[in-house]
Amino acid sequence: MFFANFTLKTEDEKLISEKDFIGKYTILSLFRELDLPNFIHYAAELSNFVEWFELKNARVAVVLSCPAEKLKQIKTTCKLRIELLCDENGSLMRSVDNLKDKKISPATIILDRWGRVRKIFDEICLDSLKEEFEQIITDDNTLNPLIQLRRAKRSFSQEKVSRDALKTIISAAHLAPSCANKQPWRFIVIESRDFLEKIHKALSGGNYWMKNAPALIVAYSKKDLDCELSDGRDYFLFDLGQAVALLQIQATQMGLIAHPVAGFDPVLVKQVLSIPEEYTVITILAIGYPSGNISSLSEKHQAIEFSSREREKLDNVAKFI
Amino acid sequence: MFFANFTLKTEDEKLISEKDFIGKYTILSLFRELDLPNFIHYAAELSNFVEWFELKNARVAVVLSCPAEKLKQIKTTCKLRIELLCDENGSLMRSVDNLKDKKISPATIILDRWGRVRKIFDEICLDSLKEEFEQIITDDNTLNPLIQLRRAKRSFSQEKVSRDALKTIISAAHLAPSCANKQPWRFIVIESRDFLEKIHKALSGGNYWMKNAPALIVAYSKKDLDCELSDGRDYFLFDLGQAVALLQIQATQMGLIAHPVAGFDPVLVKQVLSIPEEYTVITILAIGYPSGNISSLSEKHQAIEFSSREREKLDNVAKFI
Repeated sequence: MFFANFTLKTEDEKLISEKDFIGKYTILSLFRELDLPNFIHYAAELSNFVEWFELKNARVAVVLSCPAEKLKQIKTTCKLRIELLCDENGSLMRSVDNLKDKKISPATIILDRWGRVRKIFDEICLDSLKEEFEQIITDDNTLNPLIQLRRAKRSFSQEKVSRDALKTIISAAHLAPSCANKQPWRFIVIESRDFLEKIHKALSGGNYWMKNAPALIVAYSKKDLDCELSDGRDYFLFDLGQAVALLQIQATQMGLIAHPVAGFDPVLVKQVLSIPEEYTVITILAIGYPSGNISSLSEKHQAIEFSSREREKLDNVAKFI
Repeated sequence: MFFANFTLKTEDEKLISEKDFIGKYTILSLFRELDLPNFIHYAAELSNFVEWFELKNARVAVVLSCPAEKLKQIKTTCKLRIELLCDENGSLMRSVDNLKDKKISPATIILDRWGRVRKIFDEICLDSLKEEFEQIITDDNTLNPLIQLRRAKRSFSQEKVSRDALKTIISAAHLAPSCANKQPWRFIVIESRDFLEKIHKALSGGNYWMKNAPALIVAYSKKDLDCELSDGRDYFLFDLGQAVALLQIQATQMGLIAHPVAGFDPVLVKQVLSIPEEYTVITILAIGYPSGNISSLSEKHQAIEFSSREREKLDNVAKFI
């Protein structure tokens, strides 16, 4: 994830920084040397497409490394209908050099609505630029592939999950938002055979398949770790839910099943793990790499391991007013 | 997201399908025509790297379009130390052709642990293959960029959010898991000026900035829409939390702020939206595109709009046993 930090000057010698590009997509074409013929040719060509980009909510500008006072003069002389900016102190050029690990000029960069550098072209080609830009917009507006991919699968391979991988999925959970940043989530990650077997004894019969998972994560919290507001709004389970969802997205990205279940004896789990009584153990997640060999599953579970998703119609859960 | 469906035969004439590749990364090199000299050259070169790939949990195989009984013969004749598969019925070749929208051969494809086609090379080049494969592994095992990027920002641009975009973020929420697939989440998406203003009156003073958001989403549920299990395990808020987290990830991908708050009068909100009393309105999310211009925010909020994240040390929320 690359954020570029830079200060540019507008034609009116106003200072702008990377923050001024937040909110829209941005196409910035950079000319390091004032190679005027090349620049004029490209800027003229690009200006024909400014409207095309603007219709897609993108801002388009050409950045030159000349002093700011020359911008207006160039624009008037060359009759350009395009925003010109200058990189007097070279901060944008340096950012791009650092990202690409080499000096490139001319270059074109695409920033997204957060100001992230999404693409750097080390040559200037309008066709590839438009194609890549459209691809980014399409990708950004499509249902997230990990959200689509996440499924509560049951068939585990025997491959061990490294401690690092487990730490990464917990770190993802820990980046969830919470009421007043209370971070009420607590996790116990179980890798040792001894504790795994003790927890297996607390599982309901239908969760037999969890015994094949190389790791289990117990997610718990208690009421006073989070906001307790009017009208019964206790936030601890809501925020724990947010954290557990991010954990699953991260696991999915890493090719890991993270299957949360409710079928277990919570009192026994608390006893085994020395979790004080006042906590709610809301879920145990079975963690492991998937296997396409589903022979260890019951017939019922085999039938649904690769089934399509079932959801209520959207109209039944959401309305627009 | 591309999944290829295919049936191949092993050297022992065993049938295998795409499901048999789930769990590991896979490198499949495809030769459509039995161009023997080219194939032998490449297979010999690739076999030098089988160990390198296997150390990174990848399976490597070469797929030929010849009949299965020829595989063993070829392997023995050519003394190859690499898995050979045959695509007798051409199902893998057709999948690849469809994905690339043209016939390519030879080709190399990378499948991830879910069996997704992550990359198709329409030529065979070991260096690019290794480089791309390492990049995929690195990307997959890094903290998800959207989870890193998601922040509860407050400065909105005035750009309208389309109904389609709002539907997409709700659809993402609706793909959350829930206890026994109860889907207890309910959302009201508010776009009309009239309702927005009525909700503004229910916001606490500190949430003044939400008045600049072009849309609000009210997230609510009630206890009996979800599992109610022993030891106080009511799942409705936990599952609503999972859905709201996915909503935020989807919004972040789309360049949208989705900032959940608790500071509002829930009784007034229910009254305005005709939500029955027994529901819990746990959060309202402010939705809109971000702006780098933070002048509309209070000094306190300006100071934190671009601040770094604050989280407890991981050890304080998770232990590994």
